[in-house]
Amino acid sequence: MPTLNVALGERQYPIHIGSGLLGRADLVAAELPTPRVAIVSNEVVAPLYLARWTGALQAAGIRITEVVLPDGESSKNWETLNRIFDALLADRCDRATTLMALGGGVVGDLAGFAAATYQRGIPFIQVPTTLLAQVDSSVGGKTGINHPRGKNMIGAFWQPRMVLADTDTLNTLPDRELSAGMAEVIKYGLIRDLPFLEWLEDNMGRLMARDPEALSFAIERSCANKAEVVAGDERETAKEGGRALLNLGHTFGHAIETGVGYGEWLHGEAVAAGTVMAAELSRRLGWLAKSDVDRVRDLLARAALPVIGAPLGAARYLDLMGHDKKVVAGRLRLVLLKRLGEACTYADAPPDAVRAAIEGCCA
Amino acid sequence: MPTLNVALGERQYPIHIGSGLLGRADLVAAELPTPRVAIVSNEVVAPLYLARWTGALQAAGIRITEVVLPDGESSKNWETLNRIFDALLADRCDRATTLMALGGGVVGDLAGFAAATYQRGIPFIQVPTTLLAQVDSSVGGKTGINHPRGKNMIGAFWQPRMVLADTDTLNTLPDRELSAGMAEVIKYGLIRDLPFLEWLEDNMGRLMARDPEALSFAIERSCANKAEVVAGDERETAKEGGRALLNLGHTFGHAIETGVGYGEWLHGEAVAAGTVMAAELSRRLGWLAKSDVDRVRDLLARAALPVIGAPLGAARYLDLMGHDKKVVAGRLRLVLLKRLGEACTYADAPPDAVRAAIEGCCA
Repeated sequence: MPTLNVALGERQYPIHIGSGLLGRADLVAAELPTPRVAIVSNEVVAPLYLARWTGALQAAGIRITEVVLPDGESSKNWETLNRIFDALLADRCDRATTLMALGGGVVGDLAGFAAATYQRGIPFIQVPTTLLAQVDSSVGGKTGINHPRGKNMIGAFWQPRMVLADTDTLNTLPDRELSAGMAEVIKYGLIRDLPFLEWLEDNMGRLMARDPEALSFAIERSCANKAEVVAGDERETAKEGGRALLNLGHTFGHAIETGVGYGEWLHGEAVAAGTVMAAELSRRLGWLAKSDVDRVRDLLARAALPVIGAPLGAARYLDLMGHDKKVVAGRLRLVLLKRLGEACTYADAPPDAVRAAIEGCCA
Repeated sequence: MPTLNVALGERQYPIHIGSGLLGRADLVAAELPTPRVAIVSNEVVAPLYLARWTGALQAAGIRITEVVLPDGESSKNWETLNRIFDALLADRCDRATTLMALGGGVVGDLAGFAAATYQRGIPFIQVPTTLLAQVDSSVGGKTGINHPRGKNMIGAFWQPRMVLADTDTLNTLPDRELSAGMAEVIKYGLIRDLPFLEWLEDNMGRLMARDPEALSFAIERSCANKAEVVAGDERETAKEGGRALLNLGHTFGHAIETGVGYGEWLHGEAVAAGTVMAAELSRRLGWLAKSDVDRVRDLLARAALPVIGAPLGAARYLDLMGHDKKVVAGRLRLVLLKRLGEACTYADAPPDAVRAAIEGCCA
């Protein structure tokens, strides 16, 4: 079982990746301040894995509180968050209770934010069951909920004590969600790991066929990239580069998610279309060749991801992008590609070029 | 102008205390990442001070967003918090915007929690206008909202960049709120500063007559005590003593606040009655003499504070105290007095003694 480390000083934690981890209560038990866990899951994941995982933990002497939430990005709001608080309080969970997220990115973001704010913060463990959560959202401590005016607008940085990524859970993942996770995998290659990008171009067929060995390698390599970036810039405060680079395609993508309505496009799908826009804008700035943009588009398309944005109109995109957290002091700071394998943040893209890139990548 | 320092390493910050500080935009301007501030106040404080303070800041070139909330502990909930988020998003406040609380403890707790969670955290400045906020709630980084099942159950530790305590604002404070703040002032003497307790016994008359010099001294001495405790135990994780000692009377007091309904008793009033219960329980454990308990009761009474608890019945008190954040691993950890001027945390008080102490201090 490969184990990576997220090097955050006193907040450092391990990421365990492998098959059969949902039976390994021993890994968890050693990390708990008291044998008391509240597991947050959703209506799709719970029937598949909750009973088995709860059973393993109970056999290790751990008392469990279960919270099962509705599925989907549209549930990432205050009302759903409050269901977690209600359950914790009803069961008298105290400050030493460990909150555990069993599910995808939405469950992880909700449970993580609940852990960050219940009694001003309790221990948290991520057990991601989707590719997206395993390679991206479960690592790095970003938690939060959506606001009608913008995605992830309310939240906190709250690092887990451990990430447990059982690759077996990908066997039950719908094709569309496998693809959505692949958008973030491809992102790591694009922003900082050209050899990995080339490996992905050579192995996308195996990945989409769910070859376990290929998937394990892609998850490990993705987590290693993310862990390095997070360790260097935990709270996304670096003036140049740093954690912001992980948002390649995300500012355009958030505009799609918000403009279309949360839950219509999966996050990874919106990121894929947004990544093409970012590549196209990079080309217009003279940094990428047309052939580079084609490579980006082709790889995303081979992962069965959308490469054409939602037809919101460029004006609406720009308006929605103006609400993005990447706006600082009124300037839109975009993540773009200097070349394949190297991203940068850039606040000086001419508005006309941004508009043209959006229009060139929409239906 | 006395300035204290809260020694928290990279999160250290100054507490300025004095007359006329609500005109000192220069103190604030030097600390802002960008000249952009959102001021959160309430319907009582805003008519008194908001226009003058906003004017001073605008004259210093700072752009202001104003958010005026309803008054009172009953507004310390998610709905009110969301009004802050709505206003910040409507005005496109970004991550470099500084949130400022102008008001008492409720405004500070709400605004601080909004600052902790808006876009995963933005800079925060406390401008407390009540005695309670100046001596206690504005210092130390505790923020949060109430839940129907318990006070301050949802929140975060989020340190301000600065505390600006203008003692002139106490001139408009209602008598009842002056008293409520005095409960926390007396607390510092009881838990760790016997000379200050004796000074308070000698000077309570001057304080209640709002003698400016006496009030300034009491605020400074209280903040100095709080700053020392917070610097030693920022997140209340110390196994013994530490920040938990600041909660003398609070576990009993929270039961009163929750049991009677938020807003009926002021926080400081509930703490006063709770402090008498804690003193009485300390006597029953053999740590205080009856004359010590009388001194505690008399000093609180001279500050026009209630020294008799709400008649909820001991069973209801104990039930409500079981929801308190001070419960860890099922054991109720109380703050008690080893002697006047020295508090301790104690998890082994016999339930019968706790019950008797409550019954002995209720109507």
